[in-house]
Amino acid sequence: MGENDESEIIEHHDDEEMEKMRTPRNHSQSFLESVASSEKDGYSSTQSSHRLLAYSDALISIIATVMILPVAHTKFQDNEELKLSIQALLTTKVAVYLMTFLIVTVAWAAHIRLFQVIERIDDTLALLNLACMMLITFLPYTFSLMATFPNNTLGILLFCACVMVIGLIQALIVLYGFSHPFLLNDQIQMSENQAYYKRRILEVIMRVPIMCLFASVFSAIFIQVSYIILAIVIFLPYIAQCLKWIQSKAIGGQVEDSPDSVPFYTYHPSEPLSKERVEAFSDGVYAIVATLLILDICEDNVPDPSVVKKEFDNNLVAALQEYGPEYLAYFGSFATIGLLWFVHHSLFLHVTKATRLMGLFNTFSLAFVGGLPLAYQLTHEFPRGSRNELEAVQISCVIIFFAGLFQLAMWVTALFTERETLHPYVRYGGREHAFMLAKLSLYPCVALGTFVFTCVLSRFSTSIFHMMEIGVPFAFLVLRLLVRVALVLLRWLFCPARNDLDSVPVEEEDSQLPINDIVT
Amino acid sequence: MGENDESEIIEHHDDEEMEKMRTPRNHSQSFLESVASSEKDGYSSTQSSHRLLAYSDALISIIATVMILPVAHTKFQDNEELKLSIQALLTTKVAVYLMTFLIVTVAWAAHIRLFQVIERIDDTLALLNLACMMLITFLPYTFSLMATFPNNTLGILLFCACVMVIGLIQALIVLYGFSHPFLLNDQIQMSENQAYYKRRILEVIMRVPIMCLFASVFSAIFIQVSYIILAIVIFLPYIAQCLKWIQSKAIGGQVEDSPDSVPFYTYHPSEPLSKERVEAFSDGVYAIVATLLILDICEDNVPDPSVVKKEFDNNLVAALQEYGPEYLAYFGSFATIGLLWFVHHSLFLHVTKATRLMGLFNTFSLAFVGGLPLAYQLTHEFPRGSRNELEAVQISCVIIFFAGLFQLAMWVTALFTERETLHPYVRYGGREHAFMLAKLSLYPCVALGTFVFTCVLSRFSTSIFHMMEIGVPFAFLVLRLLVRVALVLLRWLFCPARNDLDSVPVEEEDSQLPINDIVT
Repeated sequence: MGENDESEIIEHHDDEEMEKMRTPRNHSQSFLESVASSEKDGYSSTQSSHRLLAYSDALISIIATVMILPVAHTKFQDNEELKLSIQALLTTKVAVYLMTFLIVTVAWAAHIRLFQVIERIDDTLALLNLACMMLITFLPYTFSLMATFPNNTLGILLFCACVMVIGLIQALIVLYGFSHPFLLNDQIQMSENQAYYKRRILEVIMRVPIMCLFASVFSAIFIQVSYIILAIVIFLPYIAQCLKWIQSKAIGGQVEDSPDSVPFYTYHPSEPLSKERVEAFSDGVYAIVATLLILDICEDNVPDPSVVKKEFDNNLVAALQEYGPEYLAYFGSFATIGLLWFVHHSLFLHVTKATRLMGLFNTFSLAFVGGLPLAYQLTHEFPRGSRNELEAVQISCVIIFFAGLFQLAMWVTALFTERETLHPYVRYGGREHAFMLAKLSLYPCVALGTFVFTCVLSRFSTSIFHMMEIGVPFAFLVLRLLVRVALVLLRWLFCPARNDLDSVPVEEEDSQLPINDIVT
Repeated sequence: MGENDESEIIEHHDDEEMEKMRTPRNHSQSFLESVASSEKDGYSSTQSSHRLLAYSDALISIIATVMILPVAHTKFQDNEELKLSIQALLTTKVAVYLMTFLIVTVAWAAHIRLFQVIERIDDTLALLNLACMMLITFLPYTFSLMATFPNNTLGILLFCACVMVIGLIQALIVLYGFSHPFLLNDQIQMSENQAYYKRRILEVIMRVPIMCLFASVFSAIFIQVSYIILAIVIFLPYIAQCLKWIQSKAIGGQVEDSPDSVPFYTYHPSEPLSKERVEAFSDGVYAIVATLLILDICEDNVPDPSVVKKEFDNNLVAALQEYGPEYLAYFGSFATIGLLWFVHHSLFLHVTKATRLMGLFNTFSLAFVGGLPLAYQLTHEFPRGSRNELEAVQISCVIIFFAGLFQLAMWVTALFTERETLHPYVRYGGREHAFMLAKLSLYPCVALGTFVFTCVLSRFSTSIFHMMEIGVPFAFLVLRLLVRVALVLLRWLFCPARNDLDSVPVEEEDSQLPINDIVT
C-alpha cells in the first residue's frame, strides 16, 4: 500500500506539472497550430491565453474592491446626533461594497468558466475580451446607482443592459471559438459531440441575459419583481447545487450526470476552478487593499507649505505629527494584509486543485480583507480611551477573525477531498499538517484572543491591539519552532508511553516521510 | 543553412519552454529538496518564488502609478488669474509623478536582480520580502514630501532612511540565501566561487545605502549636495553603462568582463530581465491605470438623492447627464489603455528574452500610459471649442504618441539582437514582421495624424478625437487584412516583375515558412 501511495504522489506531481506546463506548451503549440491553420484558412495568430487572463484578473480584482473607497472616505464625527445618520449611510455603503464584491466575483467565475472552454486565443478574442472587461468594470457603478436610487428604474436598466451585453459578447466568444476548434479545450476539441457542447454552453451563458431582459421589462411595471428576478438569476444555480449537494450527502444517493455532460458549467461545488486564476485574483485583491491607505496618504497627507509656515513655525515634524495615526494605520494594515497573503500563499502552495466551494470561501475571505484598511483607520481616528475607539478595535478584530477563518475553511473544504485537492504533506497526518493548521489558525486565534482581552481590559484596548500587531509577524517567524514544541508537549502529555516507540505509524505513507524531524 | 535555422527555431522554443517550466519544476524540486534539506538540518519549507514575485509586482505597479492621483484630482477653472498658479502646481505634480515612477521602477529592477540570484524562497525570505515591500510602498510619500518642502531635511532623511533599510533587508536576504545554498540560482549553486559572488553582490547592494548615509549626513550641512548625491546614486550605473556601450559601438572595441563576473548585477543594457516579471509589472500598471477613472466615478459621480429631488425633479437621467463627459473619458481611456495593453501583449508574445534596455523603454511607455486617464479627463472638461479643449486634445495625442513610440522602440531594440531576443516570425523578413510593425506603429501614426488634423481643423478637434477613439478598435480588428492589402500594393508598385517569381527568397528561412499566405 505504501508503494501505491508513493506512485500516487508522483502522479499528483505529474498532473500538477501538466497543468502548469499547459501554458508554455500551448505557446509552442500555438505556433505549430497557427502554421497548420494558416495553411488551412490563411488566418494565423493563435496565442496562449495566459497573459490575457492575468490582465483580466488584475482588472477584476481592482473592480471588486472599488466600492470600499466610498466606505473608507466616510468621515466620522463625535457628534452624537450626526452619528446615527452616518451609521445608517455607512451600513448602506458596506452593504453595497459586499454585494458588488459578490457580483463581480460571480462575473469573474463566469469568465473563468468561459476560458476553461476556450483555451487558446487570437487577436479577435483578445479584443472581444477587452470589450467584455470594459463592461464588467462598469458594473459597480450601475450597482451603486441601484443602491442609491432603489425606486428608480435607471439603475436596474443600466445593470441589466451591461449584463446582457456581457452575455452577448461571451456568446460571441463561444461561437467564434467553436468555429475555430483549435482554440478550444483539448477535451472538447477531441470530442465528437461538439455541437452538443456548444448548445449546452450557449444555453447556460444566455440564461442570465434573458432573465435580465425579463427583469428590465418588469422594472417598468413593478420594480420589486425585477430585484427578485436579479437575485434569482445570480444565486439560484449556487443555491440549487448547494441543496442538491446537501441532499446527496444526507441521503447518500448518487447524483449522476449524463456521461456526455460538459465538465465545466456544472455549478458543482467540486467543479474545478483554475488554481492559477484564483491565485492571480487573490494577489490582485491583496495588493490593491494593502496599498489603499498609502494612496490616500500620498494624496491628502502632504501638508500645505503655507500652513506649515503659519501654524507650525516651519516645523515640518510637528506638522506631520498630526498625521501620526494615519501612518500607524497604514503600516498596521499593510502588515496584517501582507501576513494574510502569506498564509494564503502557503496554503495554495500545497493545494493541487481548487474547487468552486474553495473559491467561494476565498471570496468571503477576500471580502473581509477589503474591509481591513477601513477598520485600521477607524482604530486610530478616535480619542484614546473613548467608547468609539474600543468599538473600532473590536471591529478590526472581528474582520481579521473572519478573514482568517474563511482561509481556514478553504483548507477544511480541501481536506474533505484531500486525495484530489491537497498535496500529501498537508493531508491528515502529513508531515506539514500540524504546521499548516498552526499557520491558518494563528490569525483567527489571535484576533479572538485580542477581542476577549479588549472586552475584559477595555481601558487598554489600543495597547493590546498594538501589541498584537507587533507580535504577530514575529510569531510567524518562529511558528515552526512553536509547533514543534507544542507537538512534543502534546506527545509527552497524552501518550508518554509511545514516546520511545517511534515506529508507530500514524498513517502508512507518513512513515516514509521524515515526520520524525518535526516531532523530535 | 536552412536546416540549421530550423534547428535553431526549435532550440529557441526549447529555451522558452525551459524558462516557463522552471516555476513548476522548482515547485516539485522544492519538495524533494526540502526533504533532502530537512534531513540535513531539520528545517524545510523551500518554495517556488513565482507567486511571491507576482504579488510584489502587483504592489510595485500600484505604487509606481500612485502619484498620478494628485495630478488627476487637481481641479481646473477657467479663471485666467488662477490658471497660472494651477499650471505651476500641475507641472510640479507631473514632475513628482514621473520621478516617483522612475525611482519605483529602479527599486523594482533591483528587486528583479535580487530574485534572479535567489530563485527559491522559504517562509523567512517571504516575510523579509514583505517587510521590504512595505518600505518600497512608502517611498512615493517621502518623495512627495521632498518635492513639497525642498529646503527641509525631513523629506530627504526619510527617503534615505527607507532606502537604507531596504538595502539592509536585501543584504540580509542575500546573506540568508548564501547560507542556504539550495535557495540560490542553479548557476551560482554549482559554482565554486560562491564566496566571490556573495561579496560582489553584497558590494553592489550596499553601495546605494552607504551613499544614502552620506546624503543624509550632508543634508544637515548643505542640502543641495545631498540631492546631487541621490541623483548620482540612482542614475550613475545606468549613465556609465550607457557611455560604455556607446563607446564600444562607436570604436568597435570589445568590452570584456572577467570570466568570473556575475551574470546579474552588471548594469549592461543587454543584461537579461525576467520577461515574466516585466509582463506582470506592465499588466499591473495597465490594469490600475485603466480603472483609475472608474474609481473616481464610483465614488464621486453618484448624485445625492436629495439633490436629484430638489434640482432635477427626481429625473435621474437629467441628473446623470451632468456627468456625461466623465463617462466618455472613462470609456475612451479604458479602450485606449486596453488597446495599448493589447499591442504590448502581442509584442511580448514574440519576445523570447527581455533585456534591461527594453525594460527601460517599457518603463517610459508605462509612465506615459499613466498620464492617459488625466489627459482624457481634461479633454471633456472644458467648454466645447475653447482654447483649453484644443490643448487638452493635443496633450492626449502627444501622450498616446509617446506611449506607442516607446513600445515601438522596445521592438526596434529587440531587433538589434533579434537572434537572442525575438521569435523568428517577427524578425526581419519573418512572416509576422510586417504585421507586428503595423500593430506597433498604428497608435503613434494615428496619434500623430490626429494631432496634425487638430492643428489644421482646430474647430473640429473634439470630433476628430472622438472619431479616432471609435475608429482605432476597428482598425485593430481588420489590421491583418489591411496589412495584406498594403503588402500586395507595395509589391505591385515596387517590384511588379517579381510578382510572378514567387521563389525569390527574401531570406533563407522565410521560404520555409508560408509567407505567401500573408502576401497572396
